[in-house]
Amino acid sequence: MSAPRFTPLAASLPSTVPFVGPETHERQTGVAFRARMGANENVFGPSPKAMAAVRAALEGVWTYADPENHDLRAALAQKHGVEPRNIMVGEGIDGLLGVLVRLLVAPGTPVVVSKGGYPTFNFHVAGFGGSLHAVPFTADDREDLHGLMAAARDVRAALVYLANPDNPMGTWWEGKAIEAALEHLPEDAVLCLDEAYIEFAPQGTAPRIDVSDPRIIRMRTFSKAYGMAGMRVGYAIGHEKLISAFDKVRNHFGMNKLAQIAALAALEDEDWLAETVRKVRASCDEIARIARANGLVPIPTATNFVAIDAGGDGDLARRIVAEMARRGVFIRMAFGPPQDRCIRVSAGREEDLALFADALEEVMGKLRG
Amino acid sequence: MSAPRFTPLAASLPSTVPFVGPETHERQTGVAFRARMGANENVFGPSPKAMAAVRAALEGVWTYADPENHDLRAALAQKHGVEPRNIMVGEGIDGLLGVLVRLLVAPGTPVVVSKGGYPTFNFHVAGFGGSLHAVPFTADDREDLHGLMAAARDVRAALVYLANPDNPMGTWWEGKAIEAALEHLPEDAVLCLDEAYIEFAPQGTAPRIDVSDPRIIRMRTFSKAYGMAGMRVGYAIGHEKLISAFDKVRNHFGMNKLAQIAALAALEDEDWLAETVRKVRASCDEIARIARANGLVPIPTATNFVAIDAGGDGDLARRIVAEMARRGVFIRMAFGPPQDRCIRVSAGREEDLALFADALEEVMGKLRG
Repeated sequence: MSAPRFTPLAASLPSTVPFVGPETHERQTGVAFRARMGANENVFGPSPKAMAAVRAALEGVWTYADPENHDLRAALAQKHGVEPRNIMVGEGIDGLLGVLVRLLVAPGTPVVVSKGGYPTFNFHVAGFGGSLHAVPFTADDREDLHGLMAAARDVRAALVYLANPDNPMGTWWEGKAIEAALEHLPEDAVLCLDEAYIEFAPQGTAPRIDVSDPRIIRMRTFSKAYGMAGMRVGYAIGHEKLISAFDKVRNHFGMNKLAQIAALAALEDEDWLAETVRKVRASCDEIARIARANGLVPIPTATNFVAIDAGGDGDLARRIVAEMARRGVFIRMAFGPPQDRCIRVSAGREEDLALFADALEEVMGKLRG
Repeated sequence: MSAPRFTPLAASLPSTVPFVGPETHERQTGVAFRARMGANENVFGPSPKAMAAVRAALEGVWTYADPENHDLRAALAQKHGVEPRNIMVGEGIDGLLGVLVRLLVAPGTPVVVSKGGYPTFNFHVAGFGGSLHAVPFTADDREDLHGLMAAARDVRAALVYLANPDNPMGTWWEGKAIEAALEHLPEDAVLCLDEAYIEFAPQGTAPRIDVSDPRIIRMRTFSKAYGMAGMRVGYAIGHEKLISAFDKVRNHFGMNKLAQIAALAALEDEDWLAETVRKVRASCDEIARIARANGLVPIPTATNFVAIDAGGDGDLARRIVAEMARRGVFIRMAFGPPQDRCIRVSAGREEDLALFADALEEVMGKLRG
């Protein structure tokens, strides 16, 4: 045998990636996107106070960040009414999902997800050899809360993933419904509740935070409402038993120091957050209006994006995405059937919306012949 | 059983961390370090051009970074005379080591390291259940190049780790010696050559880069000579077969956007790098002089730190480190016997050196009664 001697699991994995970045598309076509509305980023950006804190901290970037993320965890704990030991900070939710899966999933471990749900979670499960059991969305395009719980029991899942609000559909459950559903979650399963978009959602969408229940871990991020996807700061909230286990395997010195500082400052600027959420909601309303004006059906959203039913199948949505890209507008589509009849459009500024509106009208006209 | 249902491997791992940060010590004592000379950081900091690039890029931090790290990989490929497909960028060398180990190490996989070598590599190997085989340092405190190769053959290692120059001792092998030793590396083993400190080392310390050999992967970083430990940018150079496999499991959107931009700009400022290396060498010379003035024996170094033989055992070194900390000077010590007779002191500015000199004199006077 010759090097490298990959593990059997590593050798078996495909080289696919969960998401190809818009930059790759730009390099392939040689044309830069004029409106970036595909990655559920937040064009309204971070609090200026967070960026001021970064500027002031540049001089200190020669030191490693505090590997315990002490100050940020303390602030987050206070915000959520828990203890710092209930908080884990990591390089975005994606990074935290990878560690969580590593702790709970060995080859063959059953994991329950939604069919057509967040691909990066599935990527991590596959990467540790877990066995994915996928539950279809409900008829109203929500992740099937009750179906997920039932499947968890049926397959004896160690881990269940639910995004609330959901990506890619933007739909959501009320917090109370999730609290009630937890009664049906097996005692030895963990629900990973991905709340990346929670700040955009109506009051009551988040279930009560109860870190005494070792069966639930919440994921939050500074990439969406806080407008700093490029900084890579996510955090988990959960029972100490699970949170402390992250320390067994995580990259302790993985956090960027400026990211820690930016997140800490961003937390304090609640006015900016409120204003951002307001702008994002208005933008999503406008996206929905534009969709309807083109004879398409927007799905109600509790996020910073709108899934739009294009009235066909995945092929049609794929053609719309490609045609929009040719016109300089980056959008994505839902991940699997039947949700992939939808394109997915992130909130934009006025100028982004104008480009989107023009391009969509042109594209739909062309595709309808 | 109750949640969380950890994998047997995760359940078996200790909660120890490879390095406790200086911030933890500061919080425990309530006293801030006045000289930070323990983490092999580079107090001379990053190129001002890199920081200017960061400042200019702050506005764009609402977007995710390019997950392919295209521009940085292109620049690094050009610098090293390889192709971008031979380069992988990650969240510091620590992060890349974690992925490398994951690809090659399953429970029971034999891995060869130096006894008392870099703990974070061992942490990753343990984290994936690998079986560590540790080869003692040579009598002149170098990692035992030939012993490592022999052990790799004896235990049928999938992976061998060598830091050149070495951490914690600062010692090194000439590149030609490593090239010659590769002849004795088994065909199916991979040598991870950690060159975090290579920019400080004499010409000829790095073996020739040959990405046609799938048995060797090099690790480089912007944390040391480039002075931006807090940014978290490392990269690997190697055969496409191994490099491309990182994509199977890595956190594709893990890189901080500002970090990408800073690294790219830093690469272009070769004058700053040369000046930094000059300052670091002068500082290490001065650390050695101070050590000798106190009757201690500095080990020759090719890095930005000096291992200093304190003339006793690990207990003595531990007492020195503790006493120095009480005097506001953060240093560390070597990781295992017999090298742990040494304290390890990172290069500092004049003011750091003055604090170090005063504290060391006081501490050695006290300990000698």
